[in-house]
Amino acid sequence: MTKHLDPTAEAALIDALRPTAKASPVSGIVEVFNYGRTREGLIPMWAGEGDTPTPPEIYEAAVKSLADGETFYTYQLGIPPLREALAGYFAGLYRRDFSADEFFVTCGGMQAIQLAFQLTLAPGEEAVILSPAWPNFAGGALIQGASVRYVALDHGPDGWTLDLDKLFDAVTGKTRVLVINSPANPSGWTATEDELRAILDFARDKGLWIIADEIYGRFYYDGGPGAVAPSFQTIREPEDRILFAQTFSKNWAMTGWRMGWLQGSPALAQIVENHIQYNTSGVAPFMQRAGVAAIMHAEEFAKGQVDRAAAGREIVCDTLERFENVRFARPKGAFYAFFSIRGQEDSMATALRLVDEANIGLAPGMAFGPGAEGFYRVCYLRSPEALGEAMRRLGDWLEKQNAS
Amino acid sequence: MTKHLDPTAEAALIDALRPTAKASPVSGIVEVFNYGRTREGLIPMWAGEGDTPTPPEIYEAAVKSLADGETFYTYQLGIPPLREALAGYFAGLYRRDFSADEFFVTCGGMQAIQLAFQLTLAPGEEAVILSPAWPNFAGGALIQGASVRYVALDHGPDGWTLDLDKLFDAVTGKTRVLVINSPANPSGWTATEDELRAILDFARDKGLWIIADEIYGRFYYDGGPGAVAPSFQTIREPEDRILFAQTFSKNWAMTGWRMGWLQGSPALAQIVENHIQYNTSGVAPFMQRAGVAAIMHAEEFAKGQVDRAAAGREIVCDTLERFENVRFARPKGAFYAFFSIRGQEDSMATALRLVDEANIGLAPGMAFGPGAEGFYRVCYLRSPEALGEAMRRLGDWLEKQNAS
Repeated sequence: MTKHLDPTAEAALIDALRPTAKASPVSGIVEVFNYGRTREGLIPMWAGEGDTPTPPEIYEAAVKSLADGETFYTYQLGIPPLREALAGYFAGLYRRDFSADEFFVTCGGMQAIQLAFQLTLAPGEEAVILSPAWPNFAGGALIQGASVRYVALDHGPDGWTLDLDKLFDAVTGKTRVLVINSPANPSGWTATEDELRAILDFARDKGLWIIADEIYGRFYYDGGPGAVAPSFQTIREPEDRILFAQTFSKNWAMTGWRMGWLQGSPALAQIVENHIQYNTSGVAPFMQRAGVAAIMHAEEFAKGQVDRAAAGREIVCDTLERFENVRFARPKGAFYAFFSIRGQEDSMATALRLVDEANIGLAPGMAFGPGAEGFYRVCYLRSPEALGEAMRRLGDWLEKQNAS
Repeated sequence: MTKHLDPTAEAALIDALRPTAKASPVSGIVEVFNYGRTREGLIPMWAGEGDTPTPPEIYEAAVKSLADGETFYTYQLGIPPLREALAGYFAGLYRRDFSADEFFVTCGGMQAIQLAFQLTLAPGEEAVILSPAWPNFAGGALIQGASVRYVALDHGPDGWTLDLDKLFDAVTGKTRVLVINSPANPSGWTATEDELRAILDFARDKGLWIIADEIYGRFYYDGGPGAVAPSFQTIREPEDRILFAQTFSKNWAMTGWRMGWLQGSPALAQIVENHIQYNTSGVAPFMQRAGVAAIMHAEEFAKGQVDRAAAGREIVCDTLERFENVRFARPKGAFYAFFSIRGQEDSMATALRLVDEANIGLAPGMAFGPGAEGFYRVCYLRSPEALGEAMRRLGDWLEKQNAS
């Protein structure tokens, strides 16, 4: 079909789609990414991924599985060894018992979130999301025909903070879900255990579901080596209405794999299985073998990722602190700096200019919901050399803006 | 969380889910599969897959890509070489022009169907499905909160046939989508070109979308070597409201990979990209390299799959024809025999008995919608030796039923 449609016919075709499909939001991050992805020498810090490919101790398990012929349909909820490995991994991380039957393997953390919305949120109902927010929370809810209510974090000299009353006041009769992402992308905001307890108590009282995205839990800079961020994992009870979205992407440099998991009560297993069946019908068995290897044989690599982020955080923050027209605070968790630049309020325009004029890729704040316009997100899970060079380029560019 | 919930707490948790989630249908195929999957010596013919693992000429492209470090986020709609390869492949198959920008890579054919529903079908609206039907069509629509109306094919001495008037009469004011699966799973029913034209004309007239599942298009036994089944591809126009769900699974023995594509107007590309972003965020780049290899370097293998199915069809049908209490006709397409057994009306019970008493795995008809209870599905994309043995076991079992 090389014959393309004229604009009227195109419009008619789009008009025939479901209203929520037509209204689906474009990702602003992807827009800048597509603008700059082929620039020579560009240092890309726009995406939520590092610069390290998946290491052999992980991917060779997939290679072996392929050679062994593990290319047939498999368990919709994940192969048993992977679900067992996840239970063991979490037991080590959070010092409590977990069982394999609460882990459901998905095509990435995004699918875990999408499944969680499918399970809890009907069209016309509402999810409450803290902003600045990773845009895919809202996108995932909106394509379900649900709506979204944002609660803006406050931004002061100590960084981003949550006013719990603002969160609780935002809940209406239509609210079914609180999305709690801590440590947060892009802001680095990290809930205290007291805040998590207050949110959980509130959700219990109101009968709300919590969708917890704690994928950056190990990228936490406040508690000393090996510390994990405060988590719902250590305070919840089996009967709580809570679903965790998780991913292999960040700890093990597997962003491109699209492999993660949904964690929830084993009582939901059959219903989750149905939904995986009718969305994607599971995850390739050879991919899952790599997931097992990540957990069992790549702990040193995962720790190295955290160390790399901690070092990158220093490089990026030390540069940003030098500029009076940059407003930011050191993030407590995740692996992003999220800062505003005085006089650069149109973040999409500025992000595109930074591609052209500084050959660096930043994600524009406008992609991250209310309260985030005029901000820029830098991912600092990269080599010190690349980050040093990128920060020199950004610094030069910032000085030029001051001068002009 | 080793402490499991008591039944009351379990029920409360499930009750708090979205109504459509609670009502999501369990796959009857998976139920038998789970019952018999670990039986020693069982010959499994219940799933829609062959017995051949993915060959090296395909999977080694993934291995090379992994070693090359292609493990990062990639194009949401698919890597350009794969979309180009798909356009070239279809041009060869259907003898007309295709362009790369009408192909959108997905996590399997199932995700292509799910995306097609998300794009076209709002809660409360209706999809019309021909039955017997692959259960995932209904499952995919129901978890969207949409409803399903079945139109039963007729079953006579010449096999399954479609009464077009029954199809057209089933359409109501709420109908938005016709799902047309030809060649069909499980029945083998294959639409003639005249039937496809009549359906397309009707859809145009009523403003309906067609979701076309032609994944078995090359498994077609009526047109001589290399023939493809009649297809909407050769009769549609660019402005038609038609979405094709496709997969690498069948032609290239890649069922476990979960890789396929949605094909539709390039005018829909941005909206499809949004939906892929908020469902799964794309397909691993190293998987997509294997997709390119399948198309470019595994055509002989794909032809061999078709030949294997044609030979298997003879073995299975020759056995079934010997039994007076078996009712069936040779299927025109796909790779299933779908037959009833007189006196065995409860297909789930009989399928479980066949696991225990004959050590063979068949899919129970009850899984395939109205008109299919009392039928059994055998997948014959297997080695002649295994099929011969399986048919001996089935034949012995059938004789015993006659005797008793």
